Amino acid sequence: MKDTISIGHGGGGRLARDLIKSVFLKHLSNPILAPLGDSAVFELNGSKLALTTDSYVVRPIFSPGTDIGKLAVCGTINDLSVVGAKPLYLSCALIIEEGFSLKDLEVVALSIKETAKKAGVEVITGDTKVIERSPGESQSNIYINTAGLGIVENGIDLGIGKITVCDKIILSGTMGDHGIAVLSKRDGFDFEATIESDCAPLNGIIQKIIKAGRIKFMRDPTRGGLAGVLNEIAEDGNLEIKIDEDSIPVRDDVKGICNMLGLDPLYIANEGKVVIIAAKDDACNILKALQNDPLGQNAAIIGEVTSKEKGKGVYLKTPYGGTRILDMPLDDLLPRIC
Amino acid sequence: MKDTISIGHGGGGRLARDLIKSVFLKHLSNPILAPLGDSAVFELNGSKLALTTDSYVVRPIFSPGTDIGKLAVCGTINDLSVVGAKPLYLSCALIIEEGFSLKDLEVVALSIKETAKKAGVEVITGDTKVIERSPGESQSNIYINTAGLGIVENGIDLGIGKITVCDKIILSGTMGDHGIAVLSKRDGFDFEATIESDCAPLNGIIQKIIKAGRIKFMRDPTRGGLAGVLNEIAEDGNLEIKIDEDSIPVRDDVKGICNMLGLDPLYIANEGKVVIIAAKDDACNILKALQNDPLGQNAAIIGEVTSKEKGKGVYLKTPYGGTRILDMPLDDLLPRIC
Repeated sequence: MKDTISIGHGGGGRLARDLIKSVFLKHLSNPILAPLGDSAVFELNGSKLALTTDSYVVRPIFSPGTDIGKLAVCGTINDLSVVGAKPLYLSCALIIEEGFSLKDLEVVALSIKETAKKAGVEVITGDTKVIERSPGESQSNIYINTAGLGIVENGIDLGIGKITVCDKIILSGTMGDHGIAVLSKRDGFDFEATIESDCAPLNGIIQKIIKAGRIKFMRDPTRGGLAGVLNEIAEDGNLEIKIDEDSIPVRDDVKGICNMLGLDPLYIANEGKVVIIAAKDDACNILKALQNDPLGQNAAIIGEVTSKEKGKGVYLKTPYGGTRILDMPLDDLLPRIC
Repeated sequence: MKDTISIGHGGGGRLARDLIKSVFLKHLSNPILAPLGDSAVFELNGSKLALTTDSYVVRPIFSPGTDIGKLAVCGTINDLSVVGAKPLYLSCALIIEEGFSLKDLEVVALSIKETAKKAGVEVITGDTKVIERSPGESQSNIYINTAGLGIVENGIDLGIGKITVCDKIILSGTMGDHGIAVLSKRDGFDFEATIESDCAPLNGIIQKIIKAGRIKFMRDPTRGGLAGVLNEIAEDGNLEIKIDEDSIPVRDDVKGICNMLGLDPLYIANEGKVVIIAAKDDACNILKALQNDPLGQNAAIIGEVTSKEKGKGVYLKTPYGGTRILDMPLDDLLPRIC
């Protein structure tokens, strides 16, 4: 490992996992932190609670279908939702560079308000820090951290350890929309199509599908995309996962831009999608429940768990009949995407 | 108000309060957020919990007696402690600029570990983002956000509304140590004396004094210093507060540096001190409990609440027999101090 931090250390791939394990888990490990779940789950005074945190450094801060405020609320709500928790309260802490527009700050605050309201959560505490703008920067940045507290009810108990051979892999919708939407607003890009980010709070749809069948584990494919998430699951659970490329929903316009730029949509971040590992016999019921919700209309069963053995990984059946390894990304194809 | 953010908007004074009220409270207000306490306090499933968040942008990141990791743990523990909560769990989210030293990152992680262990809290969830280093910067920065969850037990119920005339103002120790310690490590300063930051977790001492007498309200005098905190209390509670300058503990070396630089220690940030408003008859017991703890040896009763009437403020009795208004700071004397 190099002796300084590189952009890849903040991605959704191998470099970031190695950094977390070699620096943070080494010193801070405890039974609640150790599973490195999307949220920490713990008992407090007879309640099962979930706590999570994420900082948002996306650039630019406004993109079609999203902005840094909406992202900061949805991302944290989704990290609570995928561990089966009902999100209740958020904290919101801003680091703002001097010179940042007060008008833009108000737009971001309004977006936080509207997204939180839509999802039924409340921002109950906050913090504001201001830092100097760097001399070499052409505009002032803003960074937002949200932490979220949720409650896990009705005996819900998810975990990678519960996954067994023959469990089905279900995806709630199309891959790559968020990453391509943010990319489209960066300097130098001028796509004909407007691709909107899929950024959305998933607590509503997840609470519905939890009732539809036996879910073993969920994770939202943000940084590192679907490939990153499936490799994490395979690695942490010692699993072999096989997915079918033809079954993975990708919008035609996203596919077109990816082809043009040489990007693989399976490695691109999403902000309103969830990967579900479910008992084989319940997969169809869960799929139907997803498709009955506006956020899950393009849901699909994309594969299954084929073996439980150390050193296995993720395999992709290509449209031409072949099979290839779907590797863990080393870092992110698109940095600063959330 | 100007149309862009200035450094003062991130301070502990008037500008920051106006920004929070005009942008965030305007859009996000709800009964839990509205009191703008150091932590949000709320009921969940029969438990009374507290949630708080703070981002740390201190520069330099290492100073005598503290570093950004220790600060991030203590600051959040203290924000939980002053609302009467027992801190339990922390989240920890890092934003790191590329090029940051992995060795320094490990020192910070170790400091987080040791401070959390000393205070009896656990870091249970985290996040790491990496951003580009600005072309004009000579070194890479790190920013840490911690959110904290605590539990309020034994029917403790503090609030500015509980303060009455004749309540005593108690201070747990000397003023200005943290700010001067950080300043001493900035470029261009070369003090003969080494002044250590007072940075410390206050949960232990606060849990002790809560049992010693009727405490009405507490706040830790960080950004904005003692003057900032007392003015917030006077403004939010419609109170007149009179304090006696001679009774306020300030270290001689801190006083010397403040005199030299034209700084007022009452406006300088502390990171291991608490201002306590207590029932008159219990003030001596609380003072004794403070002085029996290593973190409270220099504690003193510094004044009292003299009137409950709108538009009042904070008055300072000077050593020469006069009285002057101790104003709310407009912004911070020393920015990026925490």
